[in-house]
Amino acid sequence: MRIPDSFRLFLPELEAELRAVLGEDASPLYIMMRYHLGWVDENGRRQQSPGKLSRPTLCLLACEAVGGQWPSALPAATAVELIHNFSLIHDDIQDASWERRNRPTVWKLWGEAQAINAGDAMYVLAQLALFRLEDRGVPPQMIVLLSRHLNQASLQLCEGQYLDIEYERHLDISADRYLEMIEKKTASLFECSLRFGAMLGTKNQVQVSSLCSFGRNLGMAYQVENDLQGIWGKDEDGKESPYTDIRGRKKILPVIHALDKADDSERETLHRIYGQSTLSNGDVGQVLRILDRTGSKAHAEKLRDQYYQQSLEDLERAGLSSSPRHALEEVAAFLLGQEVG
Amino acid sequence: MRIPDSFRLFLPELEAELRAVLGEDASPLYIMMRYHLGWVDENGRRQQSPGKLSRPTLCLLACEAVGGQWPSALPAATAVELIHNFSLIHDDIQDASWERRNRPTVWKLWGEAQAINAGDAMYVLAQLALFRLEDRGVPPQMIVLLSRHLNQASLQLCEGQYLDIEYERHLDISADRYLEMIEKKTASLFECSLRFGAMLGTKNQVQVSSLCSFGRNLGMAYQVENDLQGIWGKDEDGKESPYTDIRGRKKILPVIHALDKADDSERETLHRIYGQSTLSNGDVGQVLRILDRTGSKAHAEKLRDQYYQQSLEDLERAGLSSSPRHALEEVAAFLLGQEVG
Repeated sequence: MRIPDSFRLFLPELEAELRAVLGEDASPLYIMMRYHLGWVDENGRRQQSPGKLSRPTLCLLACEAVGGQWPSALPAATAVELIHNFSLIHDDIQDASWERRNRPTVWKLWGEAQAINAGDAMYVLAQLALFRLEDRGVPPQMIVLLSRHLNQASLQLCEGQYLDIEYERHLDISADRYLEMIEKKTASLFECSLRFGAMLGTKNQVQVSSLCSFGRNLGMAYQVENDLQGIWGKDEDGKESPYTDIRGRKKILPVIHALDKADDSERETLHRIYGQSTLSNGDVGQVLRILDRTGSKAHAEKLRDQYYQQSLEDLERAGLSSSPRHALEEVAAFLLGQEVG
Repeated sequence: MRIPDSFRLFLPELEAELRAVLGEDASPLYIMMRYHLGWVDENGRRQQSPGKLSRPTLCLLACEAVGGQWPSALPAATAVELIHNFSLIHDDIQDASWERRNRPTVWKLWGEAQAINAGDAMYVLAQLALFRLEDRGVPPQMIVLLSRHLNQASLQLCEGQYLDIEYERHLDISADRYLEMIEKKTASLFECSLRFGAMLGTKNQVQVSSLCSFGRNLGMAYQVENDLQGIWGKDEDGKESPYTDIRGRKKILPVIHALDKADDSERETLHRIYGQSTLSNGDVGQVLRILDRTGSKAHAEKLRDQYYQQSLEDLERAGLSSSPRHALEEVAAFLLGQEVG
């Protein structure tokens, strides 16, 4: 799928801002952070495999879309990206994940204790990144307000992460509790990205609240799409997914739906399989057959599409001119693996 | 030793402010945080074993000492205390410590993954705590400035923690590198406490910088005293210390000094013992004899006293009236286990 122009357009200045926040410190704590961001290899040598920077791109697009000057929102976009990455560093420890974006995770290379530190330091840098708005002439009152929002979103993120880990220990999580979890864990930071861009670009409250809602619904759709990819997605070489999230016994939406809709014998099978510490190919096959029989893939796709549709209605409500609206639609479609007209 | 009146004086309002920041949320993530702060047992039932609140007490005293209204500094004092406690929750995971203040650590009860979350959430709450200054009429420009300082101190804390963990893997850490580590890990947050109180109470830059320096030197002295207590301190029942930090093979100041001053045979003994995974009583005895022969206890006491003396000179320079100066002296002496005249 073609990467929307917006990603390319903002990339140089976004990367420059991120690099300015991380500074020139050559100590290992900073190498760990640069490694996680995909800028260097584990020895600190230059390498390029950075993330997509979806959240900051949405932030800058929102600022432009409401008539603001997007460069003035760079510090805010950067802060959101650093919050996202602090949570990934800690998430990888919590999930005991060995790889992220085809490279060993930070804790796998430097150990858990130092990876906790690297995540903490990145959280601190996110706070400091936001204060660079002062240098771009944003008034202190606005900075305090944005920092409150950033930290409220971060608190939601911690609460969502708490639930996510807690749910691993239980079967039969209700769909409502699952949706509450992803709203906190994923949607709140998406909302924050759009809020930052909008608030820095306009005083029009209808536009701000419509774009916040767009961000929240897009975040929900994005997480459900992620869940689908975790089972039926292809890897980067275009090969079939090894059903990673089934093997990891993740309580993602299709599985939650299947547990709800399964008959007694299927539910017993799922309970037995999810009670094991490792899954055989036969187990994975059985889970997939139950997901198929209960229509769980179609259900997740429908839910994703509903959130996506709502997000497009939010955009409509924001009353943007057609060009910036199209750019936001394009990024949303890209994040959800959809083609846009 | 008698607890100075200042601790008692500020306690009710400090606790009320802390409780207001944590809110009424009854979810387990918040119970973990209240447990760590010593307010509840692991089931969330009321219990009282809170910490001394030394840092916030110093903050409020500083505010009063320069002629400010101490209640207006309560949100800042609370923010510092929460930063301190976030670092303790993560520190206990990193050090694999089973106990803190005679109770199981957060990770020991709830597991590492959720303890990482609880620490993260407490860090977020520290940020939000500071913004409560707005409700007490502190202008946004000042809040942004204080938040910058809080996060600079937190970054130093992460850097110091990085060094502390890194040094565990090495012998022959120089005294300079050790002092750099404790300056970042301990002294910077002490400095921040005093800075906050002073800045919220006066515009007099001499008073602010003198009190910052007082905080930094006091923090250094406090950490060296902690190191001494880790070897020769008595436990809460007044019994001899079980030489915890020797058994934990901690690279604390007396050990670093001993490694530097030891003769070849003693150094070989220390290297052998510190290369083991557990220490016998005989090993501990050998280490203590080498510490004794190299005068390492006296050396650490001298260094502590030098920092203490410098901190008292800083107080002198601040030109405070005699009553608030005496209160600060009293708290400093208490933290260092000294009697004050």
